Amino acid sequence: MDFPVAPPVTRALQRAVADSAFGYLPTSLVAETKRACADWYARTTGWAPAVADIHLVPDVLTALRVTLDHVTGPGTTAVVTTPAYMPFLTRPELVGHGLRTVAAARDADGRWVHDLEALDATLASIDGPALLVLCNPWNPVGRVLSREELLAIAEVVERHGATVFSDEIHAPVLLDDDAAHVPYASLSPATAEHTITAVSASKAWNLPGLKCAQLLATGTRHREILARPATFAGYEPATIGLVANTAAYDLGGPWLEGARTYLRENRDAFAAAIAEAIPDAVATRPEGTYLALVDLRAVRSASGAALPDDLGAFFRDHAGVAITDGALCGAPGFVRFNLALPRPLLLEAVAALGSAVDALD
Amino acid sequence: MDFPVAPPVTRALQRAVADSAFGYLPTSLVAETKRACADWYARTTGWAPAVADIHLVPDVLTALRVTLDHVTGPGTTAVVTTPAYMPFLTRPELVGHGLRTVAAARDADGRWVHDLEALDATLASIDGPALLVLCNPWNPVGRVLSREELLAIAEVVERHGATVFSDEIHAPVLLDDDAAHVPYASLSPATAEHTITAVSASKAWNLPGLKCAQLLATGTRHREILARPATFAGYEPATIGLVANTAAYDLGGPWLEGARTYLRENRDAFAAAIAEAIPDAVATRPEGTYLALVDLRAVRSASGAALPDDLGAFFRDHAGVAITDGALCGAPGFVRFNLALPRPLLLEAVAALGSAVDALD
Repeated sequence: MDFPVAPPVTRALQRAVADSAFGYLPTSLVAETKRACADWYARTTGWAPAVADIHLVPDVLTALRVTLDHVTGPGTTAVVTTPAYMPFLTRPELVGHGLRTVAAARDADGRWVHDLEALDATLASIDGPALLVLCNPWNPVGRVLSREELLAIAEVVERHGATVFSDEIHAPVLLDDDAAHVPYASLSPATAEHTITAVSASKAWNLPGLKCAQLLATGTRHREILARPATFAGYEPATIGLVANTAAYDLGGPWLEGARTYLRENRDAFAAAIAEAIPDAVATRPEGTYLALVDLRAVRSASGAALPDDLGAFFRDHAGVAITDGALCGAPGFVRFNLALPRPLLLEAVAALGSAVDALD
Repeated sequence: MDFPVAPPVTRALQRAVADSAFGYLPTSLVAETKRACADWYARTTGWAPAVADIHLVPDVLTALRVTLDHVTGPGTTAVVTTPAYMPFLTRPELVGHGLRTVAAARDADGRWVHDLEALDATLASIDGPALLVLCNPWNPVGRVLSREELLAIAEVVERHGATVFSDEIHAPVLLDDDAAHVPYASLSPATAEHTITAVSASKAWNLPGLKCAQLLATGTRHREILARPATFAGYEPATIGLVANTAAYDLGGPWLEGARTYLRENRDAFAAAIAEAIPDAVATRPEGTYLALVDLRAVRSASGAALPDDLGAFFRDHAGVAITDGALCGAPGFVRFNLALPRPLLLEAVAALGSAVDALD
């Protein structure tokens, strides 16, 4: 996010700097941050996780690792629907587990949806523990999954006795006024039991470098595992990250309203600009997150040339724009564009993408 | 450390807060922090580690885990000389490795020294990879090990083909003017080859909650292992911790000089006060660190009672003083006292310890 941080978060950090509050984690601050996270969920979704079920970690990928190593355990196969957040496709194997991907489908309106039949077949084919890595709001496709969609996923998961890692880090970033975030664990006693949820203020309030996220363990067996001292050994969040997360959850609402409005307008400006700059590009209309996924597979340059395979390098070198190659998300031929930047820069970047495409021989 | 943070560090953090510099790690900042760490070593010890050998991690315990998991690998036995920093006695087993302890000896002057014969016998008895966890300056006994002592340890290590994890986090905190920190890896080509060094500005400049430490890999084989993407996956330091470490290493020298003088005076004031408050206590005279280890085994109350086993709880409940029970350091009957606090509080705390002992029935 290329925006200044919310004023109440800045003020809390200024106070922490003035007070030299950089020591080891104070128990009272740990309790405050968990309370703030629980309150935020209750206030914005109606679901109130128990404070005792919340654990603090440095980031969502650490929460994923803890889940793979300790909750589902050695030999887990992670199942990830593509397009996916890039590290979900590499991290499980990096830390010694397996990975299977399931390609998403498109519904009648062209929206990305989970392919339940393919998910069912994949889960059926896995020996040993399986962990479905669910991302909602869905980076990079921008979907905010409905209760019905989530319930249908849960049915498949239950059929196979799988576990779910629900990454809800973009939950505060809903772009449409009528959008609602449904926590997966809140769907039913069954989903509470089979789910580890991960969240953080880091995406919505732009604090990833402060290293604090929350892992929510709502299953009886999971609670027990996560209470063991070994589970979180070495995964301490930063004290200052707790300060920032607490301020964001408690006081960052009004700033977030403004940011959501700005991001919604950026989304619409991007759609219009990309349609003009690269007419054959097909961009998602994100319902949540500040990411747009753009299908460039049908795009040809003025001279009729197809785009090169490495779209990230191409646009970096020829447009001066940093953009994520969809191949890293399991979607070659696409690019992922970050909409969280000042609008003049956004429009300039899109124009540069168009010029780079046009100029291609 | 119960002191305000050094002004140049505070200013750097204020700038970071004003600039909302909380995003993912910028490459330029990563390079700056590594350069600052290398410069600090070169300036203060004469040993200049290569910037390419420096890796950034959240804290020294993460550096230890990375060393156990990836450098010496599965099935490592960690060897720790006691008295030891508390987590060194628990962390190896928590993350799935073995642990052996070696009791330190005392020299003719009562100073804690490594027991080389016992170390030799312990290393000889270990099947599989062995990792000597060396702590210098030595928490909790306050020793700054001499070149001769380190060379003698290195000889034993080499004899058994063991690896060394050299925790040098207290290296900036030398209390005597003639004290010098000798980096273990700098002793010889052999120690460079068999050593992983860990350091951070976090102890000397009191920044542990900002999550940044440095792991130095000076061995050819270690360099290769640590270059693998899996090694540090999930162990990212906090962006703001890099800002603070860089400022501390580059600009924190003058403040540290003042802090060292104050800590030296605290050390001497503590020695006088404890001798008066608890005459039978025997306290170390730390050469480095801001920790004093106090032997209370001969202490009896006014009524002749021995002290209870749980010294931490006893002094918390009866003196209102937070003090580390030596049992956690592998030294039952001792307590570890943190000297980094304002002198009036220090003296008040020591008096309270004495009153608690006297009042014991």
